[in-house]
Amino acid sequence: MDGLRNSLDGLREACGVFAVHDHPEAVRLTYYGLYALQHRGQESAGIAACRPGEEICHYRAMGLVSEAFDAETLERLAGGPGGLGPRTVALGHVRYSTTGASRIENAQPLVMSCRGSQLALAHNGNLVDAAGWRGRLEAEGAIFQTTTDTEVIAHLAARRKGSWPEALAAAVAQVQGGYAIAALTPEGIFAARDPHGIRPLVLGRLDGAYVLASETCALDTVGARLLREVEPGEWLWIDGSGLRGGRLAPPGPRAFCIFEFIYFARPDSVFQGRAVHEVRKELGRLLAREAPVDADVVIGVPESSLPAAAGYGEEAGLPVELGLIKNRYVGRSFIRPGSADRAEAVRIKLNPIRGVVEGRRVVLVDDSLVRGTTASRLVRLLRDAGAAQVHLRITSPPYRFSCHYGVDTADRSQLMASQRQIEDIRAAVGADSLHFLSAEAMLAATGLDSESFCLGCFTGRYPVAPDAAGGAGAQAGRPRSPARSGKVEVS
Amino acid sequence: MDGLRNSLDGLREACGVFAVHDHPEAVRLTYYGLYALQHRGQESAGIAACRPGEEICHYRAMGLVSEAFDAETLERLAGGPGGLGPRTVALGHVRYSTTGASRIENAQPLVMSCRGSQLALAHNGNLVDAAGWRGRLEAEGAIFQTTTDTEVIAHLAARRKGSWPEALAAAVAQVQGGYAIAALTPEGIFAARDPHGIRPLVLGRLDGAYVLASETCALDTVGARLLREVEPGEWLWIDGSGLRGGRLAPPGPRAFCIFEFIYFARPDSVFQGRAVHEVRKELGRLLAREAPVDADVVIGVPESSLPAAAGYGEEAGLPVELGLIKNRYVGRSFIRPGSADRAEAVRIKLNPIRGVVEGRRVVLVDDSLVRGTTASRLVRLLRDAGAAQVHLRITSPPYRFSCHYGVDTADRSQLMASQRQIEDIRAAVGADSLHFLSAEAMLAATGLDSESFCLGCFTGRYPVAPDAAGGAGAQAGRPRSPARSGKVEVS
Amino acid sequence: MDGLRNSLDGLREACGVFAVHDHPEAVRLTYYGLYALQHRGQESAGIAACRPGEEICHYRAMGLVSEAFDAETLERLAGGPGGLGPRTVALGHVRYSTTGASRIENAQPLVMSCRGSQLALAHNGNLVDAAGWRGRLEAEGAIFQTTTDTEVIAHLAARRKGSWPEALAAAVAQVQGGYAIAALTPEGIFAARDPHGIRPLVLGRLDGAYVLASETCALDTVGARLLREVEPGEWLWIDGSGLRGGRLAPPGPRAFCIFEFIYFARPDSVFQGRAVHEVRKELGRLLAREAPVDADVVIGVPESSLPAAAGYGEEAGLPVELGLIKNRYVGRSFIRPGSADRAEAVRIKLNPIRGVVEGRRVVLVDDSLVRGTTASRLVRLLRDAGAAQVHLRITSPPYRFSCHYGVDTADRSQLMASQRQIEDIRAAVGADSLHFLSAEAMLAATGLDSESFCLGCFTGRYPVAPDAAGGAGAQAGRPRSPARSGKVEVS
Amino acid sequence: MDGLRNSLDGLREACGVFAVHDHPEAVRLTYYGLYALQHRGQESAGIAACRPGEEICHYRAMGLVSEAFDAETLERLAGGPGGLGPRTVALGHVRYSTTGASRIENAQPLVMSCRGSQLALAHNGNLVDAAGWRGRLEAEGAIFQTTTDTEVIAHLAARRKGSWPEALAAAVAQVQGGYAIAALTPEGIFAARDPHGIRPLVLGRLDGAYVLASETCALDTVGARLLREVEPGEWLWIDGSGLRGGRLAPPGPRAFCIFEFIYFARPDSVFQGRAVHEVRKELGRLLAREAPVDADVVIGVPESSLPAAAGYGEEAGLPVELGLIKNRYVGRSFIRPGSADRAEAVRIKLNPIRGVVEGRRVVLVDDSLVRGTTASRLVRLLRDAGAAQVHLRITSPPYRFSCHYGVDTADRSQLMASQRQIEDIRAAVGADSLHFLSAEAMLAATGLDSESFCLGCFTGRYPVAPDAAGGAGAQAGRPRSPARSGKVEVS
Repeated sequence: MDGLRNSLDGLREACGVFAVHDHPEAVRLTYYGLYALQHRGQESAGIAACRPGEEICHYRAMGLVSEAFDAETLERLAGGPGGLGPRTVALGHVRYSTTGASRIENAQPLVMSCRGSQLALAHNGNLVDAAGWRGRLEAEGAIFQTTTDTEVIAHLAARRKGSWPEALAAAVAQVQGGYAIAALTPEGIFAARDPHGIRPLVLGRLDGAYVLASETCALDTVGARLLREVEPGEWLWIDGSGLRGGRLAPPGPRAFCIFEFIYFARPDSVFQGRAVHEVRKELGRLLAREAPVDADVVIGVPESSLPAAAGYGEEAGLPVELGLIKNRYVGRSFIRPGSADRAEAVRIKLNPIRGVVEGRRVVLVDDSLVRGTTASRLVRLLRDAGAAQVHLRITSPPYRFSCHYGVDTADRSQLMASQRQIEDIRAAVGADSLHFLSAEAMLAATGLDSESFCLGCFTGRYPVAPDAAGGAGAQAGRPRSPARSGKVEVS
Repeated sequence: MDGLRNSLDGLREACGVFAVHDHPEAVRLTYYGLYALQHRGQESAGIAACRPGEEICHYRAMGLVSEAFDAETLERLAGGPGGLGPRTVALGHVRYSTTGASRIENAQPLVMSCRGSQLALAHNGNLVDAAGWRGRLEAEGAIFQTTTDTEVIAHLAARRKGSWPEALAAAVAQVQGGYAIAALTPEGIFAARDPHGIRPLVLGRLDGAYVLASETCALDTVGARLLREVEPGEWLWIDGSGLRGGRLAPPGPRAFCIFEFIYFARPDSVFQGRAVHEVRKELGRLLAREAPVDADVVIGVPESSLPAAAGYGEEAGLPVELGLIKNRYVGRSFIRPGSADRAEAVRIKLNPIRGVVEGRRVVLVDDSLVRGTTASRLVRLLRDAGAAQVHLRITSPPYRFSCHYGVDTADRSQLMASQRQIEDIRAAVGADSLHFLSAEAMLAATGLDSESFCLGCFTGRYPVAPDAAGGAGAQAGRPRSPARSGKVEVS
Repeated sequence: MDGLRNSLDGLREACGVFAVHDHPEAVRLTYYGLYALQHRGQESAGIAACRPGEEICHYRAMGLVSEAFDAETLERLAGGPGGLGPRTVALGHVRYSTTGASRIENAQPLVMSCRGSQLALAHNGNLVDAAGWRGRLEAEGAIFQTTTDTEVIAHLAARRKGSWPEALAAAVAQVQGGYAIAALTPEGIFAARDPHGIRPLVLGRLDGAYVLASETCALDTVGARLLREVEPGEWLWIDGSGLRGGRLAPPGPRAFCIFEFIYFARPDSVFQGRAVHEVRKELGRLLAREAPVDADVVIGVPESSLPAAAGYGEEAGLPVELGLIKNRYVGRSFIRPGSADRAEAVRIKLNPIRGVVEGRRVVLVDDSLVRGTTASRLVRLLRDAGAAQVHLRITSPPYRFSCHYGVDTADRSQLMASQRQIEDIRAAVGADSLHFLSAEAMLAATGLDSESFCLGCFTGRYPVAPDAAGGAGAQAGRPRSPARSGKVEVS
Repeated sequence: MDGLRNSLDGLREACGVFAVHDHPEAVRLTYYGLYALQHRGQESAGIAACRPGEEICHYRAMGLVSEAFDAETLERLAGGPGGLGPRTVALGHVRYSTTGASRIENAQPLVMSCRGSQLALAHNGNLVDAAGWRGRLEAEGAIFQTTTDTEVIAHLAARRKGSWPEALAAAVAQVQGGYAIAALTPEGIFAARDPHGIRPLVLGRLDGAYVLASETCALDTVGARLLREVEPGEWLWIDGSGLRGGRLAPPGPRAFCIFEFIYFARPDSVFQGRAVHEVRKELGRLLAREAPVDADVVIGVPESSLPAAAGYGEEAGLPVELGLIKNRYVGRSFIRPGSADRAEAVRIKLNPIRGVVEGRRVVLVDDSLVRGTTASRLVRLLRDAGAAQVHLRITSPPYRFSCHYGVDTADRSQLMASQRQIEDIRAAVGADSLHFLSAEAMLAATGLDSESFCLGCFTGRYPVAPDAAGGAGAQAGRPRSPARSGKVEVS
């Protein structure tokens, strides 16, 4: 699984969303769109669909898109061969859990009956005040059947009067965090992005239909044309009358998650006009300028760091080689070696090409260093393959703080850079030298306004206070925590 | 599936519930208890469990108990080999849907977070005012994530203050219908039965623990001793302090579903001191008195009508034979013949023993005639095997009205007796003679007060008005019906 | 599993075979025929099919017929919607292993290429000289890919010249044992039965097509008419020219397995003109004559002993009751209690009806006593339910010797009657009295020639010497036994 | 799935083999080794294992290694926690069928009983005379239970006297084709390679144990050290006494499949001292020299052509970019678009990075052009993304003839280059220019003796005549072909 990223270390994106309004192939397009977003979440997948004004049907399952859906399920979701015609409005989601346990009840889109109507809701990101809202809503009689923060938004909307777009916009305006939300109702499709634009969401067009997606690569996949990003703090409503929208809040400072550029997004995606692939290459170039080293070859950790390695080599005038071969077949069901031979685990996933490495001074480019375990294994692997020196170059600053907006990191105690100085880290991973790209260069590489990013994981300064609003409500409930934290999954 | 009943015709029980309070083997006992209640529902199975005061964990799946649970799941539910000790409080459910589509979200126990605590809820029966309550609750901001009426009770309880037993009792007192309810919270186990006692629920004791079950056969299975039935309109609360309870409503006229005696319950169960097997035999005896016939042999439709056939033969002085052999392996996954050879379908399930039937005048005893399709096929089958005459004897009156309390019947238009006179039915099924047991004899066979039963399906006179309270709320919502009726299942 | 038998004890039938020659619904008929024979083997199921003169296709899987086949597989086997038309010749098999481990390679029909043609082979029974033949054939260069004795017959046929019927008849004539064999080749269907007729095989007709089946109940199921039994020592060949046949050996003394009447066969089957159900009833009658007892009620162990209980009651003038209720849902995937509560296992499968048993002197009728564990648990169960006395009556003599012709018994050391006197057995099972039907009465009950049965399991006198011919070859190989015994299954 | 290759076009490798002799972790090492060889076959996987001198156990299943094996199966194969100790000798196989249908019976290792012993056999390659041998062997009484050519070798060995190594060597010497064979017997491990060395097989050492593998990347994966290649025409026997061997035939001209270098092998593998990755880069360099073009950027088709693109760019002085992003999640279970939107299928698998392509003259490097469908879609995709020009460069000559040694190509009629001139192909795929690397340059890139390769697919001149020896026997059987071709799979 995990084809476009280096899954050996700790960062995991939370989710991807995709929606289509009024296209005869809406369900199938959503299926393909989820394939294109699979790198954002491999734990569960789901699609909800309807004909305008009619009932919503849905299907969700654990696993990859390829595991969740078969031809028959897709056909039934799409509307089958019956006379009613295809379901032309669809909403899809792939999930890797950040909040909420990993189980089918938490798979999205959540589909609910409320307000005498129906609502399907899909969410990428994290609400910092979810616990507080759960407490307050439960105190008012609300029932939570999942452990996702997404359900909070549904409850807030269900308590609103007025039309669906107004109710959803008002509900979303009440919560704090980093999020991109898409919702399906029999009346239309709703979308919204948090006021800082922390998580991505783009709008496209295909054959007259509107398409929403977490990344532009999903638009490309279905042949849709990018119209624009959903703006930070903007909400949209798409129905038979077309597209309209409004603002959740006055425009605040933009704080886009810079890790989308560094690592999460697919290299063929584009944010704010900047191609991810090109930004990664530029990260490599600037890294070469900041931390040149007398070396023989540059190697990137596949897949995500290959563009940065290319940039580093280009800038440094050093040859770039595919020096580590990744085994694509090592996925979730891989049975790991026992403790005795754990050293082998990396070698099974990544194998160095001895001819590229042997006797050479290697620059190893990676995009981040979270827990440090992968880095030390890779350095060891290269040395075992005969590398004379290994110089580790990271295309981002030390990762020292947890993310509160939908990225699953270890807690701070497990973040290697939160505890140690650079030299200690270098010694710990066994590299001959180690450099983390400066925040300034990282920002410069994006080519965008340096004030427009969330750098919380590097600086600990967060655009939205991690405990915003959540405190009071969270403490208002019963003292026993297990009851609060919701159901425990069994399998 | 459907081992103890004749599944060829239309009646299906809705559900079975089982609960254990404070036994180190609670989860395993619940698993065995569900096996004993499997005849009450084969569509999904689930168990929720906790240690007193701690989090509830649960597992639900589609299919039989044997398909839903494996050893690892049971072990994890029970608490695993870890140091915290076993989960000693458990609640289980088997379901055949009467309201709500057939899909995993509707499987029970429903498990929810609310009131700063947790609630697992399992239900046998049907609420006649569920649609109304859904409408009113949605109007107040409630979200429904299932299409079960059980969720209505959860919402009503979630909006109540006070302790769990008070909140649950107050919630249950608000709804109308025929129901037996069991709930699990971290604080204890709750149980309640509708004021007319339409659906069964019994209380037992095992090694100092309390056990609740839909039928006594489940108590026997786990070795528990029957204490008594939960009384109509009674609620119970079992926690570390023992058992207490109260009344949902002043005692009303008892209206126990007489089909539990006739057909649903396992023959080894006992209600109100009367053994089901003995009642069935008596039904046969009275049938023989009401409708004797000059015949050679009595044959019961296996399995449910074998005791009645024995009674008929005993009373009539006729030999009773196992003249129809049922193929146990014909279950849900059986692939039926195409339309051309549909006549074969019955023969695959039931095969007459020619030696028993050939040249003889047969009395065929069955417990009910709902849609009539089975009866006509059986008569044909016996004639093809050489029966000289076939006299059909039914141990209940003509089934002419739908059940509103948790039995899945065809709608009235499909009930053969709702449209036709006895003679027409006889001609339609092709029998030489046909007799339905009179209501008087049926009631007499139970040996209980003849005023204490629900006879709605025979008389159309219901103990709880089928549309009680539901109307107003049901009409309060949006005009579009699909949105009201909730999500459609895809698989 | 095991719907028509009492699976609590040790006897297991080996296999069932079914074949159809030249019927447009051949595959579907075979599927239904296997359902009817499912009681003969629940471990694997398979069907092979072809159009006359064309390639054989097949499908085999572990589990019940319902688990092995889905609609798509059946459709593909049958020939699909393509233009070639349906496969009209089919051979099916259900298996419970007696020789050979339980794994997919051993599932039947075995399908092979040999003699420039193809052969599908299905077998019920056991060859006593299989080990010897394997040794000799391996010495001549043969390869065995299964651990079944069926494969020996294939090898012998493959080495023969001449037409398929001649080659198969010659091959079968070479082996010793108790067997019923059916084979499918592109040229036609072959069938044979061992010279003593130990295992059953019947021939029927449906719409001009020939049907072969282990029992007549399978003919009934598909609507076929019984023509006759395949005679002991007879072989048949069915092709486009019709039916022909010959003899494997001169007629020897018939030695039909009497346990087919006592226990294995479905009660609606008929052998040699005698209905199984009627024979079982007569066994009960004779048992009552041989061993009357002053009692109040007669109870049969469901399902197989119900007819015998009826006969006992009829003869003894005692009421017969359904006093033990069997839980149909307890199958292979049932998770048994731990050792502490093993006593419960029987109660989960069988529950006594207290009202039938309490305070009464019970005659408990069962068909056999093999290892004795079930009997002692049943006696205990009845006593716990209040039985004043329990008189155990067995419709067969003490089972003291292993079967060598396809019935899976414990080895002799586990056969309770092989080690003990009747009185010891009675004491061990805890009954107030115990009687085994005499061999004479058992034979009389069949109404057939008393010389025409195999009584090996009662007398140790076998119609075919258990080690016939096997010795020499078996010793010819390498000394290491593991290599001889073939592959070990892993899952 | 196909992670390391471009599966859009027609070439498929047949198989990978892996074996370990006498290592306590033999089964687990084999499991990891198969992961490393997964790119050679994704259709089925299997492992056989034993303790020296004891019974062989095995497990095979359809699908990827990750799908075929779970922890419990591996544990049971390895010997479990019982007292007998681990199975220390193991043989594994991954398969993509070239001969024989795709079904479980054909999964390898084949495991058989013969010669009074056991044999597990795994094979990469193809025997050109298999049909002939099958005919002759069937004529002598052999039974074939699979449709693999591997089974021919087993039959030939089974008919030999003498020790296992002698029998196996003699058997292998009888057949013709391109093959690498590994066999497991209770006595030891056997390996052999065809006299021309068409298919690869290497020998390594780990902790005193011997390891055999199709590629060196599998040795690396388990931490084994490469000793040497098994020589063309060499056989090896490994048992408790160590390693010994001999020759199948006098040394003939080496004819190693050059497509192992071009496309099949993992880039981190090494053959005859030449690293695959380096050869591929050199292919790109020579391609640039042969067919330079005035362009702006070089793009390789991921994954297999990335090294060649790097070489092309290096030689041409052009920038190399990751211009096509491959979706790793598009595997076997992907549901393709209907015919209307088939153009999308490529875009779902491969998405161009517009920023890399737009307005630029692109050199697109691929390793082969078989059916041409992929090439034309890729050219179209790049043009749609704005490429000004697309110059297609192939690192091998036109693929014009079928492979007879284990590579699954379309038949000749589907090979685009077999029918057309270069200019026609260029026009058909829509490229601005097209160049196939010359055979001379291709051979030069390997750095090895140009006489030492099989170039049959380019030249039609085969080292082993495709119909060698097979003819006579193949015609000796019955006239009807279906019967010859063996069983047809149903699922």
